[in-house]
Amino acid sequence: MIVTRPRYLHRLDFRAGRIDMQHGAGGRLSRQLVDELFAPAFASSVKGGDDGAVLPAASGRLVMSTDGHVVSPLFFPGGNIGDLAVNGTVNDVAMMGATPLYLSASFILEEGLPLADLRRIVEAMATAARQAGVQIVCGDTKVVERGRCDGVYISTTGIGILPEDISINGHRAIHGDRILISGPIAAHGMAIMSQREGLSFSAPILSDTAALNGLVTAMLASGCEIHTLRDPTRGGVATTLNEIAAQSQVGMTLIEDAIPVDPLAASACEMLGIDPLYVANEGCLLVICAGNDVEKLLTVMRNHPQGRYSAMIGEVQDDPLQLVQMKTRFGGCRRVDWLAGEPLPRIC
Amino acid sequence: MIVTRPRYLHRLDFRAGRIDMQHGAGGRLSRQLVDELFAPAFASSVKGGDDGAVLPAASGRLVMSTDGHVVSPLFFPGGNIGDLAVNGTVNDVAMMGATPLYLSASFILEEGLPLADLRRIVEAMATAARQAGVQIVCGDTKVVERGRCDGVYISTTGIGILPEDISINGHRAIHGDRILISGPIAAHGMAIMSQREGLSFSAPILSDTAALNGLVTAMLASGCEIHTLRDPTRGGVATTLNEIAAQSQVGMTLIEDAIPVDPLAASACEMLGIDPLYVANEGCLLVICAGNDVEKLLTVMRNHPQGRYSAMIGEVQDDPLQLVQMKTRFGGCRRVDWLAGEPLPRIC
Repeated sequence: MIVTRPRYLHRLDFRAGRIDMQHGAGGRLSRQLVDELFAPAFASSVKGGDDGAVLPAASGRLVMSTDGHVVSPLFFPGGNIGDLAVNGTVNDVAMMGATPLYLSASFILEEGLPLADLRRIVEAMATAARQAGVQIVCGDTKVVERGRCDGVYISTTGIGILPEDISINGHRAIHGDRILISGPIAAHGMAIMSQREGLSFSAPILSDTAALNGLVTAMLASGCEIHTLRDPTRGGVATTLNEIAAQSQVGMTLIEDAIPVDPLAASACEMLGIDPLYVANEGCLLVICAGNDVEKLLTVMRNHPQGRYSAMIGEVQDDPLQLVQMKTRFGGCRRVDWLAGEPLPRIC
Repeated sequence: MIVTRPRYLHRLDFRAGRIDMQHGAGGRLSRQLVDELFAPAFASSVKGGDDGAVLPAASGRLVMSTDGHVVSPLFFPGGNIGDLAVNGTVNDVAMMGATPLYLSASFILEEGLPLADLRRIVEAMATAARQAGVQIVCGDTKVVERGRCDGVYISTTGIGILPEDISINGHRAIHGDRILISGPIAAHGMAIMSQREGLSFSAPILSDTAALNGLVTAMLASGCEIHTLRDPTRGGVATTLNEIAAQSQVGMTLIEDAIPVDPLAASACEMLGIDPLYVANEGCLLVICAGNDVEKLLTVMRNHPQGRYSAMIGEVQDDPLQLVQMKTRFGGCRRVDWLAGEPLPRIC
C-alpha cells in the first residue's frame, strides 16, 4: 500500500462543517484543508508542499505590492472578500505599469467560520485569478479564536514584471496633463454600505470589483504618454488625486459635470449625504496623461470592456499649494481636500 | 511655500496615543502613520507613495513565500510578533535554497492598539530585516473595530532568488540520507506557553526566533549534497518530518538521544506533559543530506553562530508506509505521528 498523504478519517464537510482551531495548528487538519480546498482550487503549475513556490526566472524589473482585506460583510452585491483580495492586488501591480503574474494569499480565519463560506470565497479567488491571468502560487492559513477576527481576513501579495522602458508613478504628473477615469465611481463603497445598513433601492448597487490589468495592457500598447495610473480605492477619487498632487507637487482642477458616477450609487449618496468623490472604488482607474494624447487614449479605453464609460475629468497645473479643486456644475470652484475622518470603515 | 505632504496638526503621540479607525481609512491619518512610523523604520532604496514597489531585475528563478502571524501574546521572552513575522518568512524563502531579498508586510490593527506597542513591533521588524539582509519594500495597513483582532496580525511575503543549479525541496529525501538539525528544539513554543500561562522557571525560556538565511548560505557554499531544508515551526519536528516523508515517499528513523532539546524548554515540557517533538521552533532548521556528507556539513553548521549545536538525529530509509519512527533512549522503537489536535494555539 502506498500512502502519499496522511489519511483522513472523513473528508471535510463543506455543507455543515466549521473551522476549528485545529485547522490552524499545522498538523493533520491543516494539511487536510490544503489538500481538499486550497490545492484543488489554486491548482497551478507550481509544485506544492514546500515552504515557498519556485517561479521561473523573470526578465525585467519586478513590482511587488501587498494588501490586507477585512471587508465587512464578507459577501456583498457584486462580489465577496475573495475576488476583492485578488482584484485589489492585481490592480495595485498593474497601476505601476507592470504585468501581474503571481499572487500569494495569507488567510486568517475565525474559529466557527462555516466551511461553506470559506469554499465560496476560495472559489471566487480562483475564478478572479483565472480571469486576471495570474496564478495563486503560495498561501498560509492561521486560525484565531471566535471573536478575534470577523470571519476571514485575507492578505494578498502580487508580483509583476515591469519592462525597462515603462515609468509610471505618482511623481510624474505635470502642468498640462489631463486626468481621465475609466468608469463610473462610488459603486463599491455604496454597495457595501447599502448591504451593511440594510438599505434597499429599486435595484441593488453592485460593487465594481474587477481586475484592470487587461485595460492597462491595452492602454500601454497604444503608445500614449501615460504618467500616472492609480485605482481610487480607500479615500476615493478625492484622496487619490490629493496623494498624486502631493507626490508630483502640482495642483489639479476637476470638472464636476464630467465625473461619471454610478447612477444607483449617486442616488444612495444623495440620500445619505455622502460625497461620491470620497467613496471607494474597486474596478476603475485614474490616468494622468499628456494633454496631446487624450483623445487617442480615451478611444482605446472606451474600446475595452473595463473602460466603456471612460471620461476626461480634469487637468493638472502648476500650484505650489498642491490644491485639488473642482469647477462645480453651478459655475463655482471649491477645494477637494483629503479624506478626513472615517465615513465608512472596512470597505475593502 | 512648498508643501510636499498633507500637513498634520499634531505629530502622532507614540507615548499615549492609540490606533483608531481613521488610521485605516486611507485618508490623512493613514498617510500620517506611513509618514511618521512605517516609512522612517523601513527606509529603503525603493521610492514610496505608489501602489507597489519597483525592484531591480533579478537573475535566476524566484521563490515566493507568505506567512500570517497571529501570535499571542504580542511580546514574549526573546522577541515579539514583529521579528517573528520577518524571520518566519525569511526562513521559508531560505528553506528553498534561495537568497531572500524583499519582504512585504500587511498589518491588520485593532482599534485601541497603543501606538507605543505598534512602534516597538515595527522597530523589531526593521531590526530583524537589517540583520537578515532583506528590505521591507511595501506594506498595507487596515484597522478593524475593537474586539475584531487581537492587537495586531501581520502577514509577510518574501521574494528570493534561486540559482538554476539548486534544487532543494521536500520531494528529494532518499534511502540512506541523514537527518540533521541546526540547534536545540522546543524553545519558541514553550516560551509562548510559559508567558501565556504565567509559568515561571529558574530563568525565562527565550524564543529561538532568528533568521537562518546566513546559515543556509554557508551550508550551500560547502558543496555538500543537501536534498531538503525545512524549519520545524507549527507542528514541530515530528510533523515536519512526517510532511517530508509523505512528499518523498520514504520512512525515517530518529534517535531520541541525539535530538537536542533546549534545557529550560525540556523541563517545562516534562512538567506539563508535552512532547518537545511537537513544539514549534522559529530559529532552527532540519536538513536532509546525502549520508557521505554528514561530517563535513555538521562541521560547517557548527562553525556558524546559528548552528553551534547542530546534530545528526536520524536517517531516511525506504518504507512504503512512510512512517517516522524513533529509537527511544530505553532501546525501544515508537511511531512519531503527525500532530493531531491543537496543543497550543497561536504560537506564530
